[in-house]
Formats: sequence, C-alpha cells, structure tokens
Amino acid sequence: MNYHLAIDIGGTQMRAAIYPPDQIVPAHISRITTQHPTDTPLERLEELIESVLPSDGVVERIAVATPGPTDPYRGILYEAPNIPHWVNMPLKDHLEKRFQIPVDLGNDANLAALGEWKYGSGQGHHYLVYLTVSTGIGGGIIVDDRLLLGAHGLAAELGHVSVMPDGPMCGCGQPGHLEAVASGTAIAHWVEQQLVEGAQSALRALPRVTARNVAEAAQKGDLLAIAALQRAGDFLGIAIAGFLCIFNPTVVILGGGVSRSGPALLDPLRASLHRHAFTPQYVENLVITTAYLGDDAGLLGALALARGTR
Amino acid sequence: MNYHLAIDIGGTQMRAAIYPPDQIVPAHISRITTQHPTDTPLERLEELIESVLPSDGVVERIAVATPGPTDPYRGILYEAPNIPHWVNMPLKDHLEKRFQIPVDLGNDANLAALGEWKYGSGQGHHYLVYLTVSTGIGGGIIVDDRLLLGAHGLAAELGHVSVMPDGPMCGCGQPGHLEAVASGTAIAHWVEQQLVEGAQSALRALPRVTARNVAEAAQKGDLLAIAALQRAGDFLGIAIAGFLCIFNPTVVILGGGVSRSGPALLDPLRASLHRHAFTPQYVENLVITTAYLGDDAGLLGALALARGTR
Repeated sequence: MNYHLAIDIGGTQMRAAIYPPDQIVPAHISRITTQHPTDTPLERLEELIESVLPSDGVVERIAVATPGPTDPYRGILYEAPNIPHWVNMPLKDHLEKRFQIPVDLGNDANLAALGEWKYGSGQGHHYLVYLTVSTGIGGGIIVDDRLLLGAHGLAAELGHVSVMPDGPMCGCGQPGHLEAVASGTAIAHWVEQQLVEGAQSALRALPRVTARNVAEAAQKGDLLAIAALQRAGDFLGIAIAGFLCIFNPTVVILGGGVSRSGPALLDPLRASLHRHAFTPQYVENLVITTAYLGDDAGLLGALALARGTR
Repeated sequence: MNYHLAIDIGGTQMRAAIYPPDQIVPAHISRITTQHPTDTPLERLEELIESVLPSDGVVERIAVATPGPTDPYRGILYEAPNIPHWVNMPLKDHLEKRFQIPVDLGNDANLAALGEWKYGSGQGHHYLVYLTVSTGIGGGIIVDDRLLLGAHGLAAELGHVSVMPDGPMCGCGQPGHLEAVASGTAIAHWVEQQLVEGAQSALRALPRVTARNVAEAAQKGDLLAIAALQRAGDFLGIAIAGFLCIFNPTVVILGGGVSRSGPALLDPLRASLHRHAFTPQYVENLVITTAYLGDDAGLLGALALARGTR
C-alpha cells in the first residue's frame, strides 16, 4: 500500500498519521510530547515518524504543519515561538536526508485552511478566508482554488492587520493589531483590566482569567464576560469586513478555541461584519461558519499537501 | 495583421487603441468624451471602437477597463459611479453581439495592476500590491502571477479596509476606511477643516482646496499642507503594512494623481510602513515604487487581458 504521512507540530505535542489512498481516517496515528528531558524536539519528531512508518507499504510523501512562519518553497521553519532554538530550521532537508522520502512544509494556520477547504467546511468554495482565534490569531486563504503563500511564505498573517491605530500593544510589539484586541489573550487581558477598574463580575473569584472562563461566564449571563466577547466580536467583524473587500470570498471559516465561545461572540461578530461590509454584495450568500475539522484541521491540511494539493 | 483592441472607459473620456502583436505602442489610438448631448455612453463606446477597427487586419480580442465594480466572469459592469444608468450593464454580451469579436472586462484598478505587472514597475514580480490614490482609492493584486479577482470579481477594493474604526465617514457610508483618510478628497477635506478651525496656511487664499493644491503648497514648505500629506502617508503606511501581512508581496506600486505628491507624502508613507511592518522580513528587499505607466496603466492592463494574461 502507498501511504501519505501527515504531521502536526505544536509547542506541547506533535502528532503524525499515515493515510491510505483516498481516505481521511488514518491507518495509524501517534502522538508524542514536543519537549523531553533528554531528547531534542527534532529527535522527538524523528522518533514520532519512525513510530508510524508502515510495515505493509511505503510512504510516498510527508507533509508537516509547522507552528510558526515558514518558507514552504525552501522547506524552512523561520521561527517556532514555542520551541526554543528552532530558528531557520531546515526541516525539509533534514527529514528528507533522514527518511529518504520527499517532504513539504506549511504553516499550521495555512494548512488548517487547506484542510478545511479540501475536507471540511470549505469544500466546493474557490475563495475562502480561514481565521483561527485562540491564544493568538492566525489565518489561511484560498484564492482561486490555491493556497495563498506570498513571495516568501509569509502571507495570510491575518492577526497582524491594524484595526485600531492607537489600540493596545500586540504581542509582536505593534499597537492595535487584531490579535491585540480579539485573541483569547486579549479577551482575558481586557477583562482583567475591567476588574482592576472595579467592574462587577463572577470572574472576579478566579485566580486568573482565561478566554474559556470568559466564554463560560458569558453563557451564564455574566455582563462583563458578555461585554468582553461583544468587543472582540465587533473587532473581528471589522477585520473580516476588510478581508471581504480584499478577497471577495464565498466562505469565512472560524477556527481555534475562542471561536467555540458560542453566540456571545458569534452574534456580535456577524452583526459587526454586516454593519461594516463595504456593500451588501459582499455578504449576500456569504457562508460564515465554524471549522468542521476542529483540532485535526492542521493534520488534514498536511495530508492534502502531501497528496499534492497546493 | 492580427490586432488586439484595448479600451479604457472613464467618466469623462474613453480611449481605445489597437496593438500589433508583441508591441505596447498602439498602431492607432482614439479618444472620445463619454458624455454627449444626444448619444448615450454606450453609443459613444461603439463609435469609438468603430473608429479604431483596422482596415489592414482583424481584431482577435477586445478587453475593456471599466470604471467601477465588475464581474469579469460574466462580463457585467455592476455599477459605474460616474456614468448614470450604467447599472448591471452586460457590456461583454452587448459588444460581442455588435462586433462579433470576443470581449473581456476588468475593473480599471485591477487592470492597472495587471498592466504594471506585465509592462511596468511590477515586471518579474510574482506577488504585487498596486494601490491607486486619487479622488478615491482603488487596488489591484497579483498573487502567484495571477490577478486576484474574488468569487464575483469584487476583490482588491483596498480603499475600503478600516484603518480607524471611529474615523471620518467614507463616501461609501462606512466610517474610517482608508479612502476616508488618505484619498485626494480626504486630504482636501482635512485641510479645509483645519482652515475652518483657524490653521495658518497659504491654502486659505484659494476658493477651494484640492489635493493637487495641497501637494504644491507642501513643496513650497506650507506647514498645514505638509501635515496633511504626513497624515495621509501615515495611514497609507498602516494599511500597506496590513497588505504586506496578508500578501507578502515583493513590490508595492503606488498609482493615481495623489501618489505624485512627492516626498511630502512618500517619505512619511515609507516611514509609517517600516514602523508598522509586522516583522522586518516583510520589508527586507521590498520594492516600493510609483507607477511606471501613469495614465496608460488601465489601457495596457486591458491589452494584457486581451492577449490572454489573467
């Protein structure tokens, strides 16, 4: 049997899976922690790959979803914020030498978009915007049935567009980026600020506020939590209205943990998007949906890449 | 001889030109006013085309740069803000029936990008952002050697991304769009506001302020004019920094009358762009340049389209 091997590397864990032809259920999937007392993350990755190599066939191609900005043309991971020492890491060359199998890389948010387009909520669409909202905000774009990569693979960094020139500082050091007002980190931070300023909320009882706490409190009717998600939804709507002008997609897919916050986030987001859409044509028949593949989007995007989808 | 026919339709005038193979100097170019006391703009267009049809050969294909949002797939001009009654105008079908020659349409800013990419400042680049700054702000994008059109041809409306959520009202009715703070109209409007509020400036002597007046006054050292262009340049830099994150281009081309305002606009624009770039990688080796083809960009983009470039 001829398999394809897909890998999703995260700061906490890595997963690898081999897939028989035409299937999206893996024949074998394996998971390993990225950090280890004695082995380097690269050794962990090699160990993981060895654990899924099939005994009843060959692997035609490997594709890797990487946790940071990546040059897919040269197969270099520029930087992995959560994996120390992985700077300009030539993963493609390294793995090809080690396993004698062709290897492709792609940024995980880009590949999640590819996965949703090929196997998830984006099937059948030709222009797609995927936004993952979790600790940070990342993105992936399909333009005319192809993944938007950019000249050096750095395209679709949708969390770092400006939505508020004098807004809060982003983790990247610039003010007012979408990520600085609408990511999980930003939502929790805004709530903590309001608590310091004396706002009433059940969240005050917690030692530390997270975006998940905020979503749960909002479901129970906590007014501060509802206001926090309203604010994030407003800014997401403004940013997405801009992406509609730029790409004129037929589907917008929201992934990442924060996107599962429910109507307290999604209702204001939709309202803001409709309010800010340049003309009604951009939202007529537009599908706005949450990701279908959940945490498997990156892995299945890597599978699509290994199978030759670009 | 086999010719290609390119047409550029504006609210004031229309131009048509026929080009021999492999040349960008027309064998015959003709110009006509769009509005006429007795003839409709469509009759004017037909008359213009007839005037350039060659006697020594055939026209293989016609392409038209349209002055408004356009569906290039169906060949329909959705709307032409400066040509009354041109709403959902099926120009492709109409001209094909009339002349028995295949016809393609493209939005003029999109085709200006295509023209600059094929014959102008963008030659050799694979990812290009073109921004035209004049009365309004329009755009065109090349992604991996192809024009970005969007699902219904409405992509690359770069003037209508939000750069200031509570900013001045845009002509489209939404607040804080790039066009509302950095177009020629916005620059003139801001200066007029400052004059009402008592600002000192030589521009006070004029009956009406235009962006061209502001550029000329800035060249002579007028502080209010310099501040106006600084402000526009700042916002253009913020918006372009976002486009870099989104497209990771190797070239940004600035067209339109306002882009010819000189260093008083371009210096602050570059400074703002570098200050707001997400990471230094996005501006390393980035070419920022003014349009090479000037007012012929749309016409030459239509030529490229007629010759089969998409």
